[in-house]
Amino acid sequence: MRWKLTLEYEGAGFVGWQRQDNGLSVQQALEEAVMAFSGETVTLQGAGRTDSGVHASGQVAHLDLNRDCDAKTLRDAVNFHLKPRPVAILTAEPAAPDFHARFSARGRKYRYRIVNRRAPLVLDRGRAWFVARPLDAAAMAAAAARLLGRHDFSSFRAAECQAPSPVKTLDVLRVAVVSEDATGQTLEIVAEARSFLHHQVRNMVGSLRLVGEGKWSPEDMTRVLAARNRCVAGPTAPPEGLYLTAVVY
Amino acid sequence: MRWKLTLEYEGAGFVGWQRQDNGLSVQQALEEAVMAFSGETVTLQGAGRTDSGVHASGQVAHLDLNRDCDAKTLRDAVNFHLKPRPVAILTAEPAAPDFHARFSARGRKYRYRIVNRRAPLVLDRGRAWFVARPLDAAAMAAAAARLLGRHDFSSFRAAECQAPSPVKTLDVLRVAVVSEDATGQTLEIVAEARSFLHHQVRNMVGSLRLVGEGKWSPEDMTRVLAARNRCVAGPTAPPEGLYLTAVVY
Repeated sequence: MRWKLTLEYEGAGFVGWQRQDNGLSVQQALEEAVMAFSGETVTLQGAGRTDSGVHASGQVAHLDLNRDCDAKTLRDAVNFHLKPRPVAILTAEPAAPDFHARFSARGRKYRYRIVNRRAPLVLDRGRAWFVARPLDAAAMAAAAARLLGRHDFSSFRAAECQAPSPVKTLDVLRVAVVSEDATGQTLEIVAEARSFLHHQVRNMVGSLRLVGEGKWSPEDMTRVLAARNRCVAGPTAPPEGLYLTAVVY
Repeated sequence: MRWKLTLEYEGAGFVGWQRQDNGLSVQQALEEAVMAFSGETVTLQGAGRTDSGVHASGQVAHLDLNRDCDAKTLRDAVNFHLKPRPVAILTAEPAAPDFHARFSARGRKYRYRIVNRRAPLVLDRGRAWFVARPLDAAAMAAAAARLLGRHDFSSFRAAECQAPSPVKTLDVLRVAVVSEDATGQTLEIVAEARSFLHHQVRNMVGSLRLVGEGKWSPEDMTRVLAARNRCVAGPTAPPEGLYLTAVVY
């Protein structure tokens, strides 16, 4: 029986999605909890290989289980065994035998949160990128629009990226001010594509910050994209602002 | 020179606002940071004496300082000395000599967050009340409306409450669904009044939960209020869902 799981986790608690020698991954935590429930050694396949420190509110994974149970029992029992690790199954659903969390996915949605104010983060610590210098959200939105569509995104690709091609189609890259008061503002950047290069979202956000601070103009983003050279783009934004929010099938 | 400070803090990091023998209070953390900056022994007066575990995104306090400095320097320097404690000054403003954070206040605003779903909290852990049984937000809103206005709130008053009278005027008690998906919903309850009894918001929320679960009808809330007896109302909701969001002057 194949199951589709929708997952929430806090990035700081793990070395990333994928099993690693240097610490606990989300994948390993889940596989151990499934083993504790079912006695079966399973391998979870995730839709997105989130990096260390990156959060998820809608990661999707699949697994095959021999044990017969209903969806709610699977969800609640595995969640019981996951405690106190910062990961939970939001929903478990029966899936077709040919469903594959990674290869069946038609799109990934990410959200990047920036808290832009002078005071250090307290309630949002570890949940957003803290940027103290004022950001021009309208300029960032104009710069983001210049990245939409099908392009060679080599300028925003990590050196370790294993994708066969640097060409991707970026469907959405939207910059919005979600709250604002006398102390500052909170920005959210939503990114949607069939798939992304390694670090692509964080690298695009790192460059958008430079536009927001006025170091670059929105037009500079077109120049950076055209350069197809990681060295001309901005630094990688930190993982604590990034959330994998949904996978589309 | 009198200063008005607007503060953010995470409740779990402290024994509450007020100085205590059994641990670090927000007040003590701030007084120590001001001392580290100015060399002066100051006493902070807060607008609301939040309990242990209760958060603030808009607590207000005042203090008197001999050292001459501008508002941004005060904010940034004290924030530097507060690290890594989970409290920060959002804004510092010069205040009139007769300004008093507690006695000049004309109103307090609180927000209470409930995450209502089956899966344990991960990203909202410690930031909301986790309620697994489905809640009827419309019934809760109808029950909340029955508490509006000037009443004897003895049914929602903690035994340790030191207020001279149990009569308070509740200006706002609003229940809203702020997000909703297949996995559940997030509710926010906004409460506004000139002042509140000790535990009043958490005790009202504890009773609203019983309405949401269908154990009580909205009409029962009128009966509970009229009883003027803490024993007939619901249990106290936990502190981690409560935020002091603003003080009105």
